[in-house]
Amino acid sequence: MSEKSDIDALIDLMARLPGLGPRSARRAVLHLIRKRGPLLTPLAELMGRVAETARECLNCGNVGTSDICAICNDEARATGVLCVVEDVADLWAMERSGTFRGRYHVLGGTLSALDAIGPDELRIPRLVDRVTAEGVEEVILALNATVDGQTTAHYIADLLRDRVALSSLAQGVPIGGELDYLDDGTITAALTARKRL
Amino acid sequence: MSEKSDIDALIDLMARLPGLGPRSARRAVLHLIRKRGPLLTPLAELMGRVAETARECLNCGNVGTSDICAICNDEARATGVLCVVEDVADLWAMERSGTFRGRYHVLGGTLSALDAIGPDELRIPRLVDRVTAEGVEEVILALNATVDGQTTAHYIADLLRDRVALSSLAQGVPIGGELDYLDDGTITAALTARKRL
Ligand SMILES: [Zn+2]
Ligand SMILES: [Zn+2]
Repeated sequence: MSEKSDIDALIDLMARLPGLGPRSARRAVLHLIRKRGPLLTPLAELMGRVAETARECLNCGNVGTSDICAICNDEARATGVLCVVEDVADLWAMERSGTFRGRYHVLGGTLSALDAIGPDELRIPRLVDRVTAEGVEEVILALNATVDGQTTAHYIADLLRDRVALSSLAQGVPIGGELDYLDDGTITAALTARKRL
Repeated sequence: MSEKSDIDALIDLMARLPGLGPRSARRAVLHLIRKRGPLLTPLAELMGRVAETARECLNCGNVGTSDICAICNDEARATGVLCVVEDVADLWAMERSGTFRGRYHVLGGTLSALDAIGPDELRIPRLVDRVTAEGVEEVILALNATVDGQTTAHYIADLLRDRVALSSLAQGVPIGGELDYLDDGTITAALTARKRL
């Protein structure tokens, strides 16, 4: 069925998205074809536009459509407090909670001996630079409550201990839990009750 | 964050796909942005192309990129046997089993008193036309083993009983099961052991 190849190729690509397998990719593609006007066409256009414009913020690692992201560019946000997160999904989760009005630093992962990920594979050197350059007074380590997340938090705390106040999300983050799974209220509680290290 | 609006809009559209909620849509979009070259750009292009070219086969209701689909156009496939399925996902499931070498007729749903779906809302009139026009000798009713599926099968059987041999998938289709969830072997077994009505 050579004439079906675009549809088959679309199913194959969709099946590579996290959360979709071959079967749900087929369902999704049939749904897209049925909803061509309201869904498939705008989705194709948006994806094309995002493919052209999306980039990582050179300052913090957030995802946006300019070299410096909207949060880094927002003069209303406090420059003295940096919230360090593992990835952009965690930054989005923090933003949904609406509590934090400082700026972020996205590490791009955690230290991992197993995967040979050291500080230079993450945005840790850049974090140290920012602490100096932006006159940061407090760094909130909002890393996941996993072994690698906490190892990374300790590593960064050791690096910065003499230069800034350090805190970590405390109350409400369950053992082994990941930020992006928490409800906004839990994140707000954890942030409000953050403890000094 | 107005500059993020394309990304936000993309997340909103992705969340409307079956099988994806807001959270998995966010994960998927971050994954797409990270895999821009190998995934996001080709996906945007394919979606655009499929949005322009995909259409329902005027003959059988299958999805393809021409007015008459590849299966209907395939002269190697038997014209004397029609396999009636509820939707295109079921047709694809039949094709994956690789057993059936006749042609299909996609109803586009099932009769449903509750949803006010009668024969004219489905491709049932067109099925009756095809039986005559294509000299069909056997109709296999491969409908789901649900109440609505079996109601529809009986309705079609009553319509066609005097004109063609009728059979239904028998062995292996579990009670309440849907074709698209079955493994290929089960579909093959059910097709091979189909029983005359
Ligand atoms: Zn930024
Ligand atoms: Zn066809």
